[in-house]
Amino acid sequence: MTASSQAAGDGGVRALFNPASIALVGATDKSGWSISTFVNLRTHGFTGPVHLVNPRAGTVHGQPAHRSLADVPGPVDLVYVMVPTTAVLSVLQEGAKLGIRSYVILTAGFGEVGEEGGRLEAEITSFAREQGLTVLGPNGNGYINAAAGITPYGLPIPAPLLRGSVGVVLQSGALASSVLGFAQARNVGISLLTSMGNESLTTVTDVVDYLIDDPDTKVVALFLESIRDPADFARTARRALLAGKPIVALKIGRSGIASRAAQAHTGALVGDDDVVDAAFRQFGVIRVRSIEDLIITAGLLAAAGPLPGRRMGVVTPSGGASEIIADRAEEEGLELPPFAPQTVARLTEIVPGFATVQNPLDVTGYVLIDRTLMNRALETVAADPGIDLVMLLAESPRVAPPDPAPALAFYAESARRIAEAPLPVVVVANVLTDVTEFGRAVQEQTGFPHVLGGIEHGMHAIGAAVRWSEAHRAARATAGARDAAGGPGAVAGDGPPPRAEATGVWAERRAAALLAGAGLPVVPSEPVSDADAAVAAAERFGYPVVLKAAAEGLGHKSDIGGVRLGLTGPDQVRQAFDEVAAALRATGVREAGALVQPQRSGGVELLVGILRDPDWGLTLTVGFGGIWVEVLRDTALRILPVDTQEVRRALGELRGHRLLTGARGTEPADLDAVADVVVRISALATSLGERLESLEVNPLLVRGSQVEALDALVTWRD
Amino acid sequence: MTASSQAAGDGGVRALFNPASIALVGATDKSGWSISTFVNLRTHGFTGPVHLVNPRAGTVHGQPAHRSLADVPGPVDLVYVMVPTTAVLSVLQEGAKLGIRSYVILTAGFGEVGEEGGRLEAEITSFAREQGLTVLGPNGNGYINAAAGITPYGLPIPAPLLRGSVGVVLQSGALASSVLGFAQARNVGISLLTSMGNESLTTVTDVVDYLIDDPDTKVVALFLESIRDPADFARTARRALLAGKPIVALKIGRSGIASRAAQAHTGALVGDDDVVDAAFRQFGVIRVRSIEDLIITAGLLAAAGPLPGRRMGVVTPSGGASEIIADRAEEEGLELPPFAPQTVARLTEIVPGFATVQNPLDVTGYVLIDRTLMNRALETVAADPGIDLVMLLAESPRVAPPDPAPALAFYAESARRIAEAPLPVVVVANVLTDVTEFGRAVQEQTGFPHVLGGIEHGMHAIGAAVRWSEAHRAARATAGARDAAGGPGAVAGDGPPPRAEATGVWAERRAAALLAGAGLPVVPSEPVSDADAAVAAAERFGYPVVLKAAAEGLGHKSDIGGVRLGLTGPDQVRQAFDEVAAALRATGVREAGALVQPQRSGGVELLVGILRDPDWGLTLTVGFGGIWVEVLRDTALRILPVDTQEVRRALGELRGHRLLTGARGTEPADLDAVADVVVRISALATSLGERLESLEVNPLLVRGSQVEALDALVTWRD
Repeated sequence: MTASSQAAGDGGVRALFNPASIALVGATDKSGWSISTFVNLRTHGFTGPVHLVNPRAGTVHGQPAHRSLADVPGPVDLVYVMVPTTAVLSVLQEGAKLGIRSYVILTAGFGEVGEEGGRLEAEITSFAREQGLTVLGPNGNGYINAAAGITPYGLPIPAPLLRGSVGVVLQSGALASSVLGFAQARNVGISLLTSMGNESLTTVTDVVDYLIDDPDTKVVALFLESIRDPADFARTARRALLAGKPIVALKIGRSGIASRAAQAHTGALVGDDDVVDAAFRQFGVIRVRSIEDLIITAGLLAAAGPLPGRRMGVVTPSGGASEIIADRAEEEGLELPPFAPQTVARLTEIVPGFATVQNPLDVTGYVLIDRTLMNRALETVAADPGIDLVMLLAESPRVAPPDPAPALAFYAESARRIAEAPLPVVVVANVLTDVTEFGRAVQEQTGFPHVLGGIEHGMHAIGAAVRWSEAHRAARATAGARDAAGGPGAVAGDGPPPRAEATGVWAERRAAALLAGAGLPVVPSEPVSDADAAVAAAERFGYPVVLKAAAEGLGHKSDIGGVRLGLTGPDQVRQAFDEVAAALRATGVREAGALVQPQRSGGVELLVGILRDPDWGLTLTVGFGGIWVEVLRDTALRILPVDTQEVRRALGELRGHRLLTGARGTEPADLDAVADVVVRISALATSLGERLESLEVNPLLVRGSQVEALDALVTWRD
Repeated sequence: MTASSQAAGDGGVRALFNPASIALVGATDKSGWSISTFVNLRTHGFTGPVHLVNPRAGTVHGQPAHRSLADVPGPVDLVYVMVPTTAVLSVLQEGAKLGIRSYVILTAGFGEVGEEGGRLEAEITSFAREQGLTVLGPNGNGYINAAAGITPYGLPIPAPLLRGSVGVVLQSGALASSVLGFAQARNVGISLLTSMGNESLTTVTDVVDYLIDDPDTKVVALFLESIRDPADFARTARRALLAGKPIVALKIGRSGIASRAAQAHTGALVGDDDVVDAAFRQFGVIRVRSIEDLIITAGLLAAAGPLPGRRMGVVTPSGGASEIIADRAEEEGLELPPFAPQTVARLTEIVPGFATVQNPLDVTGYVLIDRTLMNRALETVAADPGIDLVMLLAESPRVAPPDPAPALAFYAESARRIAEAPLPVVVVANVLTDVTEFGRAVQEQTGFPHVLGGIEHGMHAIGAAVRWSEAHRAARATAGARDAAGGPGAVAGDGPPPRAEATGVWAERRAAALLAGAGLPVVPSEPVSDADAAVAAAERFGYPVVLKAAAEGLGHKSDIGGVRLGLTGPDQVRQAFDEVAAALRATGVREAGALVQPQRSGGVELLVGILRDPDWGLTLTVGFGGIWVEVLRDTALRILPVDTQEVRRALGELRGHRLLTGARGTEPADLDAVADVVVRISALATSLGERLESLEVNPLLVRGSQVEALDALVTWRD
């Protein structure tokens, strides 16, 4: 929740979207925006008064206008502001004086155009905050509350406006028409659509928060250029996941160029995309890459709700389609298990003799002759004990035949069978073509369910919905367990070190001591300041040993040849010390010292890095050492906090994950032990407070159930 | 070219698709297929006679039927066969006697249902081959020659049938309606659509061959379950690439399950998908994964032809869309270079002051006020010297306004500007919704160009078209160079060894000798039969050396501990020989021997494998040794023959390709030298004849420009 909505409270956003009376300030026949807003309010069901305010009064849009807000008779719940940029503040001032709390500012020319505009925007923002006003915009087109028929929205709304349960929040006003047009073509109805503009007060997160609690909304669809307060967004996303309201997001800025474009467009900075990707996955936000997938995925989840599992039975009238579905299922991680013997037996009686009974099922082109074939096959497949949902390949009708009665009867019968099925039945069309007016009418009249647009996007949507459903159930289970245990566990470590100490770079012994102090396993080491001491230490550990340069603030030891591995005797240790000390002195270090450690061999080396992201806070990166990170950039990323399950999932994402399960003859790692150490490193980092910039354990050696930090580096920010 | 079309000649397929008179044998009012075929021929422009044949004569489809083909008056060019399965052969026999050469067999019940059907199909096939008949099917729905208005096709054709220049060849009849429906929704016209059925005579390749020479066809779109004769298909694909006729293919069987489904569906075996993928890329076939991408990509190439390059200037009315485009461009490998200074200067005068002038260009929502804005921006961007093509984001109109004149004038003006642009202008809509009847009418009347369906699929299509265009130009250049040089170069090696020798496994010395005999660089080695000889050999090479077990037919030496690396002195060599010899004797080898080689160090180890694919013939696999192949399966695949450019492209595809360019401190490899050796290994394998099963060089050591085979293995098939 941002400052604005904290001031206005949750009720502020609710009031913004549910006014009983509206004033359009700056209304004029000369503006297309003014005309559209007025026409929209008059044609989509708003029954309250719409007052027009224009300093020249007279007649606007065919009705008398008032000179100012003060002249408007009766109460005003929402002011829709279309005056010039420099006049916006005075409208808010007048409105606030009259006790009006909610504003939509369509006017542009603020932060998005430069410094001067930014100053004007800051004035408005601070005034609204002071007064506890709720403001949408500036530089947005308003909103369409389709559920309530309240449409203060500055662009033409393509007819018909379909009411439904998808809440749409857009950071690009220009895409609204495309989103509305595509949703209409897919027969996906919306509850609320908002065009956010500059978000100087009400943010995307505020609107999503409202939608989570909105009974008319089942799914939230977002178009995002940037996320203003990622931590806040993360909290809201977690709440949505627990509440069972899926968030589907098209977040741009995946490429460098897009990040540049976004900056120009809204004055917002686009964050690092890998972190966004990790965060979305972690918080259960479904990320899509096209408007088509945004609406089709949201439409599926609005129609079907959470899906019970990933084992899918498929019924189609086409072998070719079955094969495309099988390919796509594998890519989406959906399972197509063989049918149970009794299902096969029953299907064999139903389908023609030349058909092959298997999953996916091709009932064959015989459907053209026997129109009951698909329904009977569907009923049988839906009774199979080994599947979680059924995918039915079927089209909604396109063109009304001269006598529509048989078509209506056919779809009504199909609708009845689908409704009676003991499992969710998801209907998918072969290709993505519009649901026609006739198709929509048939669906309305017969109750035939929502039809996903084409196998390609349909399978993507089912895959995303299944993954979201699993995340939703896991989140509920974890929340339940946490409640039972009385909240999250305590964090390791002694808390942040004093400000004076927490500066610069902590390497080697100091970093190792920090880890060891938090109870983490660290390889033993001994500081030595001359060659004799080095040899003595080596003898105590037993050969082979490692000798490393040690000096205050020394970061990359290997760059100066400061790490010597595999020293097998006193002479080698002595020589190594002398060379390392010389190298150190060459870099200007006065008191050259070194560390001696036992040399570990075998096992797998992990990198565990905690880094502070400027937007999302502390992040965890795990990967394998060496080429895996250097050449392949094979890493997995998470936002903190993490639990062991999340860490195990992250390790499982690594391309080299088989190195932990015994590939190339390595000893299989105890993944629970590894995850436990990673979680404890993460908890330690969190406990170190805001000054921590990074904490990197590299390598973390894993041999079976032995997990040990061989080296670490801590950096602090000033 | 298959046996059937060899018999019938190219003219056979041409005659099949261009009859002047047609007889429907088995015509009856009781069959939907018969009705559809008759109605299709009567309503889509076929002006020749359509004779109906039914043994009971009488009236069928409202016209008199003949008892047999012999009773039909006048010549018959094509027989469309709908009789029961067992009666098909006699129809062919009667037709052949009457001199009729072309047949479409709709009847099913042949190879696709089992052994008995397979026998019937084989009878028909052999009869047709003998008689030199051209047969499409059986078990297909016929074809739609839209260009000529000849439509012997057994399913209803959704109206309107749009004529155009995309030739469609389908191995799944049931998908034809979806393909036609989607093409219609995209306003993509077809030249010819064929539903192949069982391909017992005329194959996909035959039809593609015809389409390459068909002046009405600019692009070929395929739905493939399997490829009957891959080598034949490869030749045809290469011819299409050179001829500038793009082939776009949706080839299923990417997953294991799909392969099972395909087997059931057509009785065809689906080949190994990785090989298919490599083959398609190599032969310039554009592979897509959805019907949407199939038609949208084909539609673009039909409308725009080859595209001149990958540097794209983008003009849009929306910041949000610009950002989606920037993300997708990066994924598709398309470049969005900054505009030239003069372009920026001119655009700054054109767009509103608050707009940011950059590529992609957002001219802003001001287009709603100034309808000339997009056209002026387009003209300016198209004049930029640094771009190859322009992408214009625009919608075709959906609903006819009461007065369509202004809309028509607007689109006519846009069409003129686009036609006058000095570069190709590709128009893409925001989202994938149908081109409406009004939209189609506007495009026809104004010449407004083809509109790609949505940013998501549109960008995919542009990326694919650009890659195909590059492959097309490269193929032309190579063909030109080859013509100049007088055909492909000679192949290394002495030709296949005699049959008696080419059996089993050739390892070590025998394989090394084969390589060396073909002039390939091989590490020196010396066979030894006792420890003294081993030490003597090691002394000659200088330490360190490698000692390897050597025995007839020994494949995996390392499994028995038969490879000893890094032997640094005589004692180690002696001990290694004794141990290896003991290990060999333990496996039952009598005359235990070994090889001594100098130990190479440093460099990068490659795996070069030539393997015979049952469908595509010899293939080349390259990869890095060790974890790269074992854990990451990081390989690149090609069909032989390859040239050095193709090998360099393959190496560039490897995830670890940076290992060759100096990552991790390795010496950058001489890629020309590496590619040269790989090409010579490939040529050697080809020269070894049909009995070669595999030839694997592993490792091929690369150190700068030194390339040397350290070990090799040859296997022969019996």
